[in-house]
Amino acid sequence: MATKTAPDSSRRSERSRRAIYDAALALISEAGYAKTTIEGIAARAGVGKQTIYRWWSSKAEVLLEAFVDMGERNMAAAAEAAGTDPASVRALPDTGDLAADLKHVLRATVDELNDPAFEAPYRALAAEGIVNRELSARVVEQLLEPGLQLYVDRLRAAQESGAVRAEVDPRIALELFVSPLAQRWLQGTGELSHAYADALVDYALGGLSPR
Amino acid sequence: MATKTAPDSSRRSERSRRAIYDAALALISEAGYAKTTIEGIAARAGVGKQTIYRWWSSKAEVLLEAFVDMGERNMAAAAEAAGTDPASVRALPDTGDLAADLKHVLRATVDELNDPAFEAPYRALAAEGIVNRELSARVVEQLLEPGLQLYVDRLRAAQESGAVRAEVDPRIALELFVSPLAQRWLQGTGELSHAYADALVDYALGGLSPR
Repeated sequence: MATKTAPDSSRRSERSRRAIYDAALALISEAGYAKTTIEGIAARAGVGKQTIYRWWSSKAEVLLEAFVDMGERNMAAAAEAAGTDPASVRALPDTGDLAADLKHVLRATVDELNDPAFEAPYRALAAEGIVNRELSARVVEQLLEPGLQLYVDRLRAAQESGAVRAEVDPRIALELFVSPLAQRWLQGTGELSHAYADALVDYALGGLSPR
Repeated sequence: MATKTAPDSSRRSERSRRAIYDAALALISEAGYAKTTIEGIAARAGVGKQTIYRWWSSKAEVLLEAFVDMGERNMAAAAEAAGTDPASVRALPDTGDLAADLKHVLRATVDELNDPAFEAPYRALAAEGIVNRELSARVVEQLLEPGLQLYVDRLRAAQESGAVRAEVDPRIALELFVSPLAQRWLQGTGELSHAYADALVDYALGGLSPR
């Protein structure tokens, strides 16, 4: 996070921050990335423009942090629903059963991608990222890669326990199940279901060729 | 193709058609999908607006056919460069070696995705497709699925010869190597190289788990 303030913000500023995130996500959903402005976010959040500029230096920064915050809230909610420690949301589950762990995470991703509250803002961000290379680079660095690194870590642990071949590059391997999900969501080429997520994991781990 | 004329067009109208495709692809590259108009395409191609409306009923139709035509020209050029029959471009190669055949096609796809002449118009179409669901459905039906069906056919042949497990759904299986390529191109999350294409094929066919 490249915010300008220290984390000792008061409760009042935390409320403003949340209102600003909510306003930013609502505006990008409704008007798209290009038409969302700092002024519009401030008006919708009921704060002054200077409140936003005190914490962030650009529209891209506000929006990226709003997405990071939404992702963290979703993961914390999922951890709470599963009865696990919210502190564990910074890692993928490791029960020792790689297939089960990956299916668990990909099924949750399917649910998130099918959630209308998530759909509209993320689609607006993805559309702008395709033609705006500077924004795209920041989305990759701040939103995408930190999430993908959790898969790298889980696949490395699987290599240590012998569940994944040692010569496999984990950063490429994760794309076999993560990218198909993302592509179907972007292009609408097929249903996004738990059965589909399970098939991707089974095919990627077991391989398409007979054993 | 839902064109209004029979395929017995004169040489003169073939020249107009090619000029219209080139103008459409140039305009979408420069101005984006939303700002490209039938009027703009006609002016750039040096034809009257009515010439375009005689053959197509909408901007989306002109652009989709321009993309289909570009894909066919690229495949015919690739077949000619490889010394194979241009008529065979409607099927993936089948030498009996599935891994080699898939690597051949994915390496050619990598070269196409790295070609600037292809990059700009396709990126503009992809960006619009993410927020324009009607266009997206037509892109999927007319551009994407016919190409993916060639992979389905090749994987079915591999199932018959025993190179792919019988219980695998070919329409899902192809996504293990096609979607990662597409995602890297869209998001710029990593290099698009022949070595990367080869790794995707090896991982998908052999599986990540030890054999």
